Amino acid sequence: MNYRMIKHTLGWLLIFEAAFFLLPMLTAVIYAEWDALFAFLISALICLGIGWLCVLKKPEKTTIYAREGFVIVSLSWILLSLFGALPFMFCGTTANFVDALFETASGFTTTGSSIFREVESLPKAILMWRSFTHWIGGMGVLVFIMAFLPLGGGQNMHIMRAESPGPEVSKLVPKVKQTALILYSIYFALTVIQTVTLLISGMSFFEAINTAFATAGTGGFGIRNDSFASFSAVQQIIVTIFMLVFSINFNSYYLALRLKFKDAFNAEVRAFLLIVTAAIAIVTINIHQSYGSVGEALRHAAFSVSSLISTTGFATENFDLWPALSKTVLVLVMFIGACAGSTGGGMKVSRILIIFKGFIREIYTLIHPKQVKKISIDKRPVDREVVRSVNAYLACYILVFAISLLLITLDNRDLVTNFTAVAATINNIGPGLSEVGPAANFADFSIFSKLVLTFNMIAGRLELFPMLILFSPATWKKK
Amino acid sequence: MNYRMIKHTLGWLLIFEAAFFLLPMLTAVIYAEWDALFAFLISALICLGIGWLCVLKKPEKTTIYAREGFVIVSLSWILLSLFGALPFMFCGTTANFVDALFETASGFTTTGSSIFREVESLPKAILMWRSFTHWIGGMGVLVFIMAFLPLGGGQNMHIMRAESPGPEVSKLVPKVKQTALILYSIYFALTVIQTVTLLISGMSFFEAINTAFATAGTGGFGIRNDSFASFSAVQQIIVTIFMLVFSINFNSYYLALRLKFKDAFNAEVRAFLLIVTAAIAIVTINIHQSYGSVGEALRHAAFSVSSLISTTGFATENFDLWPALSKTVLVLVMFIGACAGSTGGGMKVSRILIIFKGFIREIYTLIHPKQVKKISIDKRPVDREVVRSVNAYLACYILVFAISLLLITLDNRDLVTNFTAVAATINNIGPGLSEVGPAANFADFSIFSKLVLTFNMIAGRLELFPMLILFSPATWKKK
Repeated sequence: MNYRMIKHTLGWLLIFEAAFFLLPMLTAVIYAEWDALFAFLISALICLGIGWLCVLKKPEKTTIYAREGFVIVSLSWILLSLFGALPFMFCGTTANFVDALFETASGFTTTGSSIFREVESLPKAILMWRSFTHWIGGMGVLVFIMAFLPLGGGQNMHIMRAESPGPEVSKLVPKVKQTALILYSIYFALTVIQTVTLLISGMSFFEAINTAFATAGTGGFGIRNDSFASFSAVQQIIVTIFMLVFSINFNSYYLALRLKFKDAFNAEVRAFLLIVTAAIAIVTINIHQSYGSVGEALRHAAFSVSSLISTTGFATENFDLWPALSKTVLVLVMFIGACAGSTGGGMKVSRILIIFKGFIREIYTLIHPKQVKKISIDKRPVDREVVRSVNAYLACYILVFAISLLLITLDNRDLVTNFTAVAATINNIGPGLSEVGPAANFADFSIFSKLVLTFNMIAGRLELFPMLILFSPATWKKK
Repeated sequence: MNYRMIKHTLGWLLIFEAAFFLLPMLTAVIYAEWDALFAFLISALICLGIGWLCVLKKPEKTTIYAREGFVIVSLSWILLSLFGALPFMFCGTTANFVDALFETASGFTTTGSSIFREVESLPKAILMWRSFTHWIGGMGVLVFIMAFLPLGGGQNMHIMRAESPGPEVSKLVPKVKQTALILYSIYFALTVIQTVTLLISGMSFFEAINTAFATAGTGGFGIRNDSFASFSAVQQIIVTIFMLVFSINFNSYYLALRLKFKDAFNAEVRAFLLIVTAAIAIVTINIHQSYGSVGEALRHAAFSVSSLISTTGFATENFDLWPALSKTVLVLVMFIGACAGSTGGGMKVSRILIIFKGFIREIYTLIHPKQVKKISIDKRPVDREVVRSVNAYLACYILVFAISLLLITLDNRDLVTNFTAVAATINNIGPGLSEVGPAANFADFSIFSKLVLTFNMIAGRLELFPMLILFSPATWKKK
């Protein structure tokens, strides 16, 4: 294990985190929130100090292998959350450190589950930090840092593989750095487009940028107590569209820009849009009697489905009060999640596709035992390693889900609350149903349950394996 | 597709079903229930008549392939349930045919979910038929029939593979017929032992034989309205032990009889006992404050855990009223289920083992990408085909579960009811939680939901693939 390299990378991470604090500091200056400014300044200095100590000595050997990659990625996300929680404490906005950690991890992992019972009284700088953590976490921070780190060595692929969502990592261009640059540019451009669109719709600049950050990262922290209910219908529709936009594989946008429309509109994107359309249709039909018009029902159905399948977690309506069918559809799309290579969470549509095709192949093999058939997607056979890894992911997902469920049931809350709380955190969504529904929050869980759910959020964001590898004895064994 | 052979086999099946009716007819004679006797007699004659027409002409070609095997098995279970439902109708005990079908399918699949609000007023012959369907369905009826059918041809393996539970079918001895004979003898012997033990404990003969049938098949239909609550503590303990006995792979008993104790006590059996012990311990600790003594809490915990993991479904206590942790443990063991090659349902411990080991292997492969590691159980590597098939089963399971859940939510009952109703039927358990808890029943579901749940019971008993193959267009396509 190359400990020096790990220390060095984590040092740089903290220096970057100090830089991230500049945006809320600027917000604090604009809104004359001097207490908040001070809180962020202190936090930034702490990060800078510790970070600087770690990077003082450049490691002689910069080579890292797969396991260092996983360890760096999982430790980075833990550290990012731990240090990002400092301003919440220094501002006195949270009762204890675990609450602050929960809120920050929820931000970086783009979950959007909150322990705040109401957010409108929070300092603007804190609101900006919450939204900004979504934006930073959305595309992943380490790939960004590694791309610009003065280290050299071509091992960034290990980091990228561990941090990027989806069963496969495809480099758009041969170099990781270039690929990262393209993806971040698309991310930045789309965020700007959304901000401008929201400004045109009549939002204030502060609201527009916060909403754009939270949508782009598919996060879901709101800046109003009613999430998105009190925004205008047009603004709700804009956000609906952008939640879906940020759920689609960014590679598709790159391919579309290069006029390769057929490649851009691939099997995963088609399946995603099909699922979204079907889910919206079912929910609209199921709820339309409770609303004035089909149009209104459609708007709320589209917003809720897009919010949950993109794993954003905004709400215009308290869908916990909808009929059982709608609630069940919403819970199912929570598990499916967005496309691979997007900022969304969940299992990812491409994994669902591979799992589903594996099942179809099995039926075929049982009927025709002598014919060998490979799983293929977009007419390309899927590598056997990928199929194996997707199956292992599913097993791992079920295992982590079951254990977390058992641990948080110790709080003795109802089964729907427990089940959807785990689903909402492991899939990085935000709200669940019942006592963690869109009209409620995570404040009432015990400290222990909050830690379990924090683990779930980070594990879910990193797609489980990096966090499990961090805690696996085999990782730390000397060869 | 060898249609003649399918017709011929199904004909024999109906003739056997007519023979099965003899036991409730005998019961009706003993208890002087002449209406019931007449109902079973008419049903038997119908089965005999239709069966005789089907077997009149022996097919020229007796060769069957995999797909005929699957079609025969799934059609058999559907027919068995359809015709087995007749006495319920002729006796006037059910309001409509779907209720009768639900009850019969619940019997044969050893589920034990009931639409009867109370059972003590039912004719004794009907109670006997309900219990007897469990016993017939427990070990699978087709393997039995094929073993004794005057057909010849060595294709019984296709039937056995489709009907027997678990990821792999191992023949104890080279011939299928011999293997079947050994397994049925063990089944018969254990049932006799349980009946005698219950008689010694003070049960009446009628109660003892019904209880033994329902336990042996891991079914769960009770003969008292309170299921097992009003039986004595000793009787509850006897049933607890036998529920576990019938959850263990019958191959293990054969190996133990041949003094191969090490082979008998294999990884699956060890894992099963470990899970049972852990679950009982957690539930006992969690509920002991509500009971007079730890002993009493332990007895109810052991009974409930054994009842749900063996997928029997008897109850001594209304565990729907227990704390969230206990309820969650019970729901989790519902999914795990019994050992392969037993009469129990669920996913089977051996599948869980393979899935779990696949996940451990993936962690190892991620840390050491260059080392190739195979999954092995009991120090023997697991065939890649088996691993693939287990993964496909898991995918299929999730798919069938999700679709059934969506369909029954149309009744607009609460999420816990819907979720556990699907879990209880697909895993062949019986009771769930909330409105289908041990103190409730399935009577209030709509006709449509009852049909969905009936499909789940049969699909679950046959481990999904046969029923899906029956409805797959590829099965019926001419080559």
